[in-house]
Amino acid sequence: MLTGRPATTGPVPQRRPDVAVVGGGPIGWAVAWRCAVRGLRVVVHDPAPGSGASHVAAGMLAPVAEAYFGERELTGLLTESAGRWPGFAAELTEATGTDIGYRTEGTLMVGLTADDLAEARRLWAYQQGLGLPVTPLRPSQLREREPALAPRVRGGALAATDHQVDPRRLVPALRLAAERAGAVLVAEPVRRLSDVTAGVTVVAAGCGVAALTGLPVRPVKGQVLRLRAPDGGPPGFRHVIRGYADGEHVYLVPRDSGEVVVGATVEERSDLDVCAGAVLRLLRAAVDLLPEIAEYDLVETLAGLRPGTPDNAPILGPLPGHPDVLVAAGHHRHGIVLTPVTADLITELITGDGSPHTLLAPFRPDRFADASGVVGAASTFSHPTEDDSWN
Amino acid sequence: MLTGRPATTGPVPQRRPDVAVVGGGPIGWAVAWRCAVRGLRVVVHDPAPGSGASHVAAGMLAPVAEAYFGERELTGLLTESAGRWPGFAAELTEATGTDIGYRTEGTLMVGLTADDLAEARRLWAYQQGLGLPVTPLRPSQLREREPALAPRVRGGALAATDHQVDPRRLVPALRLAAERAGAVLVAEPVRRLSDVTAGVTVVAAGCGVAALTGLPVRPVKGQVLRLRAPDGGPPGFRHVIRGYADGEHVYLVPRDSGEVVVGATVEERSDLDVCAGAVLRLLRAAVDLLPEIAEYDLVETLAGLRPGTPDNAPILGPLPGHPDVLVAAGHHRHGIVLTPVTADLITELITGDGSPHTLLAPFRPDRFADASGVVGAASTFSHPTEDDSWN
Repeated sequence: MLTGRPATTGPVPQRRPDVAVVGGGPIGWAVAWRCAVRGLRVVVHDPAPGSGASHVAAGMLAPVAEAYFGERELTGLLTESAGRWPGFAAELTEATGTDIGYRTEGTLMVGLTADDLAEARRLWAYQQGLGLPVTPLRPSQLREREPALAPRVRGGALAATDHQVDPRRLVPALRLAAERAGAVLVAEPVRRLSDVTAGVTVVAAGCGVAALTGLPVRPVKGQVLRLRAPDGGPPGFRHVIRGYADGEHVYLVPRDSGEVVVGATVEERSDLDVCAGAVLRLLRAAVDLLPEIAEYDLVETLAGLRPGTPDNAPILGPLPGHPDVLVAAGHHRHGIVLTPVTADLITELITGDGSPHTLLAPFRPDRFADASGVVGAASTFSHPTEDDSWN
Repeated sequence: MLTGRPATTGPVPQRRPDVAVVGGGPIGWAVAWRCAVRGLRVVVHDPAPGSGASHVAAGMLAPVAEAYFGERELTGLLTESAGRWPGFAAELTEATGTDIGYRTEGTLMVGLTADDLAEARRLWAYQQGLGLPVTPLRPSQLREREPALAPRVRGGALAATDHQVDPRRLVPALRLAAERAGAVLVAEPVRRLSDVTAGVTVVAAGCGVAALTGLPVRPVKGQVLRLRAPDGGPPGFRHVIRGYADGEHVYLVPRDSGEVVVGATVEERSDLDVCAGAVLRLLRAAVDLLPEIAEYDLVETLAGLRPGTPDNAPILGPLPGHPDVLVAAGHHRHGIVLTPVTADLITELITGDGSPHTLLAPFRPDRFADASGVVGAASTFSHPTEDDSWN
């Protein structure tokens, strides 16, 4: 679509950018980084980079534990992207010297009661049926791996390839890498895509994508707690723990810093209020699975909005009727794990010969187009004539 | 002790004050107000007025519900002070035009389970034995008064004379009243009492009293939640609710603003960390008693330090060996309810003929004096020669 030029190291020329990215979350910065490294002139528009869903996200890279019934194509993309994470993390650390909290101890999936375990086992059987690496563990094996688990926990399984990263370290690292490669931040909001002047516009604006494009991206509220192990030490467990506890689904993500992220509610709401009942349910489930959590400090209670779509899968590719607008949005609960594959595929669309990767086929924006082939409000914007006034 | 002079309305003279109050919490400002109104020159020393225990306190005025076994003399003082609250609140509102959130709907004491109710009834019988107004209610009467109570709540009783005030409104109002009467804030910490120059020094520094005087005042940590009723409305209940829920003691204090204060832990610790287990226990007990709490926003989790004493009663009167130092401290859980009587009695000590009110007898500092009659570190400070450098 576009060909690169040698990267410049001097001041950014006051010219129309090759690529304008709308949204400075992990997806936006990763696309910007990949494009800038290829020598494209890139700007990123965001009044508050990294303040969206990624600020709240736990950072689980969990294609196995997140393989749910009826989402096979999404599971394929999650698996593909998780497979790219080790290289992506190494490359990013190499480019920035930043520790992004990438950890590979794996994930323990557990059930507290017999009912919880029965529900979990149904899902594990489905995941194994897809060929995903789920290893059931005997209770003794579970406790050998993670002695902090409550004695009541009835059973579990290991998803050894489900890793984690710290999104609050990831996004600044991606921004640093992108800026070092020449990308420039414009810290202002984009109200209409027609206000953006660039060769290609990448819309990676999370929940803001609906207003910009008319695509069916809706906010899905999630409430999350951040705890801290007492006395400045690391948490008393090493794996990501995901479990059912008396019917409540909860996860606990331990960080080297002592932080533990506990989440998350999934609510069809768009407010950011933290609700007493949600905090109670999350804490109760967390303490039921890992009793030592009761001794941890509660340092943050927070709500965020995930960009959900009708089929829970992201929207990746050209906006119908607007070949120079690429959508990279609707990642719902999967924005962090899908960052590498999204960045790679979108960059390939921009710099390649225009033929989309087969991986993209199930996620094209036009799957939500109406009969006329035009997506809602997207038909109402038009690009202005080019000028060189951006900076 | 000291005689008043006509209150001046001009600038405060650069002279030695008649009264220096160390500590700008409710006790300190109330003493300052009472003294300033009598025409005394008053300074209040506090680097951060109102930031201590009162910032965390719920503001229950509960001599009945707080009448515990083995604390008869304290109960007498609580009752005396609660009786002064209506006049005190009216006078303060008159002086400042401020709404201090004084509410008189009374307190419902409840038990969730049969065991909880049995424990509560033991205490109610004791309280009734002291002649305190405790009215047992049938479950139907309880629900008539407060329909939001959980159907599971087994029984309750009304303490109609246990009222409430909002400490975060009270302290600014007291400060305003004191300053209008001529008191002056010196927003700096006092490290040693010998640094203070005044006719009389009143030590009302909460947990700081131990270091200043050597008296046995220790921090007793309390964790408290602040919730908000949804949609900007008032809480769905009007009484203060105090209850036992599966052995957990909890209170809920509704404010007209929509705020509900839920508390509190009682811990022999001096840190200000908010602990996951404490939040879980408070929320669980609150939701068990009033299910609608689950829908409330959790807006603040906070810990504070109450100034506790060996016998749970305050320390009021002259510091042994230092007749010009008056202690008004160690109010533990009772600082708000005891504010009027403390202010009155301390002001009387300062302006009266030196003979202490009989109410003070059980609370004299010298009950903690050692055999030599001198209280610990208090013996190590001395007053400097008078100079006129304060301002």
